[in-house]
Amino acid sequence: MQTLLPNSRIMPPPGAITKQEIKNQLIAHERRFPSKLAQKADWNVIPQSVHSKNTVNPVRKIADACAVSPNPDKRVIRLHLGDPSVGGKLPPSEVAVQAMKESVDSHCYDGYGPAVGALAARQAIVDRYSTPSSAFTADDVVLASGCSHALQMAIEAVANPGDSILVPHPGFPLYSTLCRPHNIVDKPYKINMTGEEVRIDFSYMATVIDENTKAIIINNPGNPTGGVFTKEHLEEILAFAEKYKLIVIADEIYGDLVFNGATFYPLASLSPKVPVITCDGIAKRWMVPGWRLGWIIIHNRFGVLSEVKKGIVALSQKIVGPCALVQGALPKILKETPEEYFVYTRNVIEENANTVANILESAPGIRVVKPKGAMYMMVAVSKSAFGSDVNFCQNLIKEESVFCLPGQAFSAPGYFRLVLTSSTEEMEEAAVRISEFCLRHFNQSTDSEDSSDEGLDLSAIDSD
Amino acid sequence: MQTLLPNSRIMPPPGAITKQEIKNQLIAHERRFPSKLAQKADWNVIPQSVHSKNTVNPVRKIADACAVSPNPDKRVIRLHLGDPSVGGKLPPSEVAVQAMKESVDSHCYDGYGPAVGALAARQAIVDRYSTPSSAFTADDVVLASGCSHALQMAIEAVANPGDSILVPHPGFPLYSTLCRPHNIVDKPYKINMTGEEVRIDFSYMATVIDENTKAIIINNPGNPTGGVFTKEHLEEILAFAEKYKLIVIADEIYGDLVFNGATFYPLASLSPKVPVITCDGIAKRWMVPGWRLGWIIIHNRFGVLSEVKKGIVALSQKIVGPCALVQGALPKILKETPEEYFVYTRNVIEENANTVANILESAPGIRVVKPKGAMYMMVAVSKSAFGSDVNFCQNLIKEESVFCLPGQAFSAPGYFRLVLTSSTEEMEEAAVRISEFCLRHFNQSTDSEDSSDEGLDLSAIDSD
Repeated sequence: MQTLLPNSRIMPPPGAITKQEIKNQLIAHERRFPSKLAQKADWNVIPQSVHSKNTVNPVRKIADACAVSPNPDKRVIRLHLGDPSVGGKLPPSEVAVQAMKESVDSHCYDGYGPAVGALAARQAIVDRYSTPSSAFTADDVVLASGCSHALQMAIEAVANPGDSILVPHPGFPLYSTLCRPHNIVDKPYKINMTGEEVRIDFSYMATVIDENTKAIIINNPGNPTGGVFTKEHLEEILAFAEKYKLIVIADEIYGDLVFNGATFYPLASLSPKVPVITCDGIAKRWMVPGWRLGWIIIHNRFGVLSEVKKGIVALSQKIVGPCALVQGALPKILKETPEEYFVYTRNVIEENANTVANILESAPGIRVVKPKGAMYMMVAVSKSAFGSDVNFCQNLIKEESVFCLPGQAFSAPGYFRLVLTSSTEEMEEAAVRISEFCLRHFNQSTDSEDSSDEGLDLSAIDSD
Repeated sequence: MQTLLPNSRIMPPPGAITKQEIKNQLIAHERRFPSKLAQKADWNVIPQSVHSKNTVNPVRKIADACAVSPNPDKRVIRLHLGDPSVGGKLPPSEVAVQAMKESVDSHCYDGYGPAVGALAARQAIVDRYSTPSSAFTADDVVLASGCSHALQMAIEAVANPGDSILVPHPGFPLYSTLCRPHNIVDKPYKINMTGEEVRIDFSYMATVIDENTKAIIINNPGNPTGGVFTKEHLEEILAFAEKYKLIVIADEIYGDLVFNGATFYPLASLSPKVPVITCDGIAKRWMVPGWRLGWIIIHNRFGVLSEVKKGIVALSQKIVGPCALVQGALPKILKETPEEYFVYTRNVIEENANTVANILESAPGIRVVKPKGAMYMMVAVSKSAFGSDVNFCQNLIKEESVFCLPGQAFSAPGYFRLVLTSSTEEMEEAAVRISEFCLRHFNQSTDSEDSSDEGLDLSAIDSD
């Protein structure tokens, strides 16, 4: 302890350590770690962390495999990106545009808001989505930089290294991308796309669970399946979660974007008991994925999720909330976007789905999984006629300049996914080209095969 | 393997597993995990993950301690938030506002961009910041959701659990908040605020390093110190990093926001050899922290950071880039904001700093650390006169309605931090109130003490 002269306001040097002590420490340190000081004469390439190395998006690799040149004689048609803003057919509503400009002009959203998001924005989510059967308050809402970030926080708050989370196959690969760097095991469960309705294979799923399974991710409506679970099936999912005491992470980013007779039920609305963490955002119904505004609703039944909620709130501090300007616009966007906007977008996607399905119906060697929601269509391809789904997509680009994503990107080998948000004329053109492509290749493959061939070999489809 | 009937396009059920096999699996599973199935009759509170539990922002706890009621007879003056938008004195430039509205109207930024950020935005960063002595390309730039997110990605890409990163004390607590959940050790080094210039205590820092130390975070200009390192000192820092082969993470969010004769040197510009990861953004010089746009520049000297760069790129995929609208506005913001805007903001902060310093100069029991950069002033407080820095700030709110943050929030106990971005009149008023507060408390404390008291006991200051 040092004592200063009277009235001096000069600080003592930091700490109470003397120069001699520091010297002694340095000598001891150099003895202890000589290699560090002596050997590192020059820089080597510095390895990245295991965490970042394990942050892998499988779509990237597969997209790289599809980096082939399109047919120069045919106009390119891009049906591979799940981005409704690409085609120009589904712009955001004028309300959203106006809300953003008002937010900018107000100068109320230039500064930091709370890390969990502005209260008015969270309250707007309550006003729109809270129902008597799944009531929540602004305190249960955390804003995120897009639904991806919402999923990231939900996953990181519920599971420890070695724990597992059940993820859908086919499914959005980001779930695995977010789990693996934390050594959270992404255990796949199967979604059956072969019936009239998509269904989870519960028998299989039960075999995958163990004591370390913490949560199940349910994506409804589904990417890439385009499937919408029925109310009965959702109730079965909740009963399953109840039986095994699993948190449900409900990725409902496509929400009521359903058609062809389907109805969307928010998972949390169907059980008063199962703890549900709903992840959502304005990307896919308000058609502004680039604006990066998502949210988490913590349906904290009986306080079961109180600790997890604390965790999500803590995690939100890392990046201090999404763009405040969009937060400022959110109340107007949620309250004032006219219902006709959603009717229009649903109609566009429904019409596109049915147009494409009708044309592909007669194409040989493929089978359409008719979608009822989201903005995607899955199409099964015959391996013997076309090779793998990656081969199919590569050749489709080369010959027809139509870009789709191979199902392998979504753990659905033997399928490809096409996006349904372009203009109907472009969708029609794409479907015709795909049909011609199939006819050409199918004839080639059957020409060269033994005539005793019993038909398409589709056995590889649906296997992992 | 199943064979389908000729021409059938119906898929086989997924996998080749039979119902009997599934039953057997289920029976085996129930035998293996009976507890899971039998015991969990009802839901218990589900624990949050260790990762989220370890995500702690120390400011929150200290801010909670300062949640006392201000004096109802005095207008509240808020000098505790490092948010230049709060006072209304430092709005964003008209260029930035215009750029945002053009971005919204263009409809070019409603959709997803690349996860690393739009090329035009990254190129704009190159155009503004690449110099012959620290040249880089758009390929070396990754956009982030604010500088906090930039720091998060840099930290997560360079260190593994058990590794350490050197963080400044006093310093921005987010560094520790970002390290600890990954079991990355945040080892503090000391910044000495007692001389004419802030300086790192290298002797101390050397004792802290070991084989697992991967990087050092340098925040210049500094929060909360308001200090700006001299060119010579920055060269010493680089020599230190070179000697110990440490990556430098340069948090330069305050950049050339310097005054009182100081000059800002980007760290990367002073060494052609040391690998530097610069984290920056538009929050604090363009005065829009709420817009959440930051970036990382990877100064990949001799390819030493090639792997780390891959890691940062991988990590950027988790939330798919910051708000695309702000990315769209960035080129105009960086290119067209007039120099007068920066001259103005620097002048405001410099004038505020000097006004407050002049008034507090004569206040007893405190000592101003005169700032040369950023937007903060640190003030040391006498423990015997005022109690801890937390006590000081609590009483200052209660009696004078002036909100400041205790130094403990920045690992600087014995100090408080005030923010210099309000109007000069308000800063002056705050300084007068602080002076009066000091005079009142100082007289009380010396009245009640033994007259042989040798003066202020400042020995607790600067200790951790």
